[in-house]
Amino acid sequence: MPGLTHWHSPNFHAYYPTAHSFPAVVGELMSAGFGCVGLSWVASPAYTELEVAMMNWLGKLLDIPEEFLNCSEGPGGGVIQGSASEVTFVALLAAKEKMVKDLRTLNPELKEADIKGRLVAYSSDQSNSSVEKAGLLGSMPMRLLPSDEKGRLTSTALIEAMEKDKAQGLIPCYVVACLGTTPTCAFDDLSDLAPVCKRENVWLHVDAAYAGTAFACPEYRHLMKGVEHADSFNFNPHKWMLVNFDCSAMWVKDARYLVEAFNVERIYLKDKHKGLAPEYRHWQISLGRRFRALKLWFVLRIYGVEGIQKHVRHQISLAEYFEELLRKDNRFEVCTSSMGLVCFRLKDGDKPTQELLERIHERKIIYVIAGQFRGVFVIRFAICSRLTQRSDVDYAWQEFLSQVEFIIPSNKNIIADEINEKKSIATIELPSAACENINCNEKSK
Amino acid sequence: MPGLTHWHSPNFHAYYPTAHSFPAVVGELMSAGFGCVGLSWVASPAYTELEVAMMNWLGKLLDIPEEFLNCSEGPGGGVIQGSASEVTFVALLAAKEKMVKDLRTLNPELKEADIKGRLVAYSSDQSNSSVEKAGLLGSMPMRLLPSDEKGRLTSTALIEAMEKDKAQGLIPCYVVACLGTTPTCAFDDLSDLAPVCKRENVWLHVDAAYAGTAFACPEYRHLMKGVEHADSFNFNPHKWMLVNFDCSAMWVKDARYLVEAFNVERIYLKDKHKGLAPEYRHWQISLGRRFRALKLWFVLRIYGVEGIQKHVRHQISLAEYFEELLRKDNRFEVCTSSMGLVCFRLKDGDKPTQELLERIHERKIIYVIAGQFRGVFVIRFAICSRLTQRSDVDYAWQEFLSQVEFIIPSNKNIIADEINEKKSIATIELPSAACENINCNEKSK
Repeated sequence: MPGLTHWHSPNFHAYYPTAHSFPAVVGELMSAGFGCVGLSWVASPAYTELEVAMMNWLGKLLDIPEEFLNCSEGPGGGVIQGSASEVTFVALLAAKEKMVKDLRTLNPELKEADIKGRLVAYSSDQSNSSVEKAGLLGSMPMRLLPSDEKGRLTSTALIEAMEKDKAQGLIPCYVVACLGTTPTCAFDDLSDLAPVCKRENVWLHVDAAYAGTAFACPEYRHLMKGVEHADSFNFNPHKWMLVNFDCSAMWVKDARYLVEAFNVERIYLKDKHKGLAPEYRHWQISLGRRFRALKLWFVLRIYGVEGIQKHVRHQISLAEYFEELLRKDNRFEVCTSSMGLVCFRLKDGDKPTQELLERIHERKIIYVIAGQFRGVFVIRFAICSRLTQRSDVDYAWQEFLSQVEFIIPSNKNIIADEINEKKSIATIELPSAACENINCNEKSK
Repeated sequence: MPGLTHWHSPNFHAYYPTAHSFPAVVGELMSAGFGCVGLSWVASPAYTELEVAMMNWLGKLLDIPEEFLNCSEGPGGGVIQGSASEVTFVALLAAKEKMVKDLRTLNPELKEADIKGRLVAYSSDQSNSSVEKAGLLGSMPMRLLPSDEKGRLTSTALIEAMEKDKAQGLIPCYVVACLGTTPTCAFDDLSDLAPVCKRENVWLHVDAAYAGTAFACPEYRHLMKGVEHADSFNFNPHKWMLVNFDCSAMWVKDARYLVEAFNVERIYLKDKHKGLAPEYRHWQISLGRRFRALKLWFVLRIYGVEGIQKHVRHQISLAEYFEELLRKDNRFEVCTSSMGLVCFRLKDGDKPTQELLERIHERKIIYVIAGQFRGVFVIRFAICSRLTQRSDVDYAWQEFLSQVEFIIPSNKNIIADEINEKKSIATIELPSAACENINCNEKSK
């Protein structure tokens, strides 16, 4: 297909994955075919009811605390939004609503506008651009605090920033913690941040857009330790969980703050079934809604828990394999490696790393993009396509090798013998065009 | 299909239409199949480029002023958003951005927060609930001003409200005019409102969510007279223009205010193609985008201008036919009739009208919903499905007749003889169950 960037090519390693699977495509097709609009329960009951059920299934798949689920007895619940950007903004509005209510309960003389004008939000400098955007949209300054050496927001930085703001008469209101940051897939430590949020009565939102899918595997759940203290939690099945864009899963512990931030009742939306099922239009920006729960249903039924776990573990193993390859060549340096993402650079510094990336971009054999970590320029290598296999990682590695050759010529000793023996491809002595052929041959095996 | 409300049944006459057509479904399927994410031009060039082209085609189809189009020389342009709710909110943010900039240019000592805390927005009490919601989301009080006897916002009401606010130190910032209000499809007079907005330096947004499609037909364009003075314009191809939900078309005269309200640059989004095509992520809330332009392309290519005009004219003619039927029975009163929507009631008042609606809801033969117009309870009858024909309007009318009989028994004289003769169905003498059968038979003819 001309004009498209092939996100589902096994040679696409840019950004993060965007999910794709045939069950999800069928779900999308059926949703378009039915063509209803779920603007309220009565406007298409199955839209709401299947979404309630799917958000419960999904919450159980990830093993998030039960009080987030629709099936719990409390005011918690889950909803499908369009994107993590939307969710971060929506949660910010709920946080604002809660803070205004809390402060006015303590001091009824405070004016709403005065409170709102003094609210502040926090996240790390590693959070997604959409977090900063949520602050812009919600007119709440978003402090992007310096992360630690592992790319994490720390309670120390958070406390310091909050104290500084409070000293200026401002009111800490909202914290966005990241489980899997965009640049390097770093994990903030929720059990470090949560006590601060609790003490300051600040809304803690957890953005696990990409990495959240990994919690389907018990061995990764320690990375969300402390999630029980969060007020809202978000991950995108449309990133890593095989559900086509858009499908962003959001849970809140107390949905009433959302509903109060959004609720605008008009007569043409009133009906007598009110109160029996959530009216999701009060949980989101738009009035209308597609039947996105159907995509989730198809994927969960056809892949099942084990299918999803297998997919996650396979993709992580491919990233680990790529990391191994990098570590065996001492021109390269692995900066971070987490889940399906490896960030690396050339030891010689930013300029040669940048040159390597430019060469790769110029050739269009594989696609990777730049990142920045602790002030240095890195190349992000993500396992993206559902179709990517070990041979595709080899193929990408050969592409990097062929191009680094023009920047830092190797001698055979530099490349660990092991790789050359295993692959039997004398890539490093060949000029670039020949390399490409060899890689193609390798590929077709 | 159990559990679904069949928006595309020819007997669905509730809310407004939501569009459905096979070309659009194919477009949606292909978009899901490609499964790319258009988070920037380079992340899938065709996503951006086809959208630019389609928004130009669409603007020309409706004959909106050229300065709104991407192909004009100025800073205007069009973008596909998810819903009119999103658009109204996004335009509000742009209006806020502009006002802050304008006021600080005049008086650099003014603080941003002080300006933002004093901004006010206006619309009529007939605007969609999403307009009020946009005010809530954007922390800008939205005054819902009383409409005139035709359901229109007037310059008199607008000036009065603005003067009142200014006297209290507030700053008028944003006006949402409706071309086709939700309750009755009333049209605000833009040429009446625009001079006020211009004088007060207020952003004028035009919400033509449903009725905008009618401007594909030259005979309805007089209803948007004055649109050249608007700052932004929105209509939903996903309502009446045969493009499946979601596809909401938004144009702005100066996109720079949007971009400035949204722009958050991060290194992983940077690339060297910047500036050549619009980066639509700065025009909207989310970072990711589906390939919605494809649905538009399929519909525009397969239906063509004439196909869309034919569809609009046919649906309006069906509403006019229903209005005729109502006018011939003196138990009924037509309250408003505009485009594909007729609002009516029983002359005997709210209570019997409400009872009639309850009976119709109970029976589930056709689906209509309530509305309110100038303080009275009305039933909204909208031509919704692409498949609705004259015989379906007859079918709905027989359903109303059969039920009104229990509330206001007729004698043969009340129902105009003409109808009975034409249809040869002695509906009015029969009890409800029998009516239903007759209607079904009538339908199957």
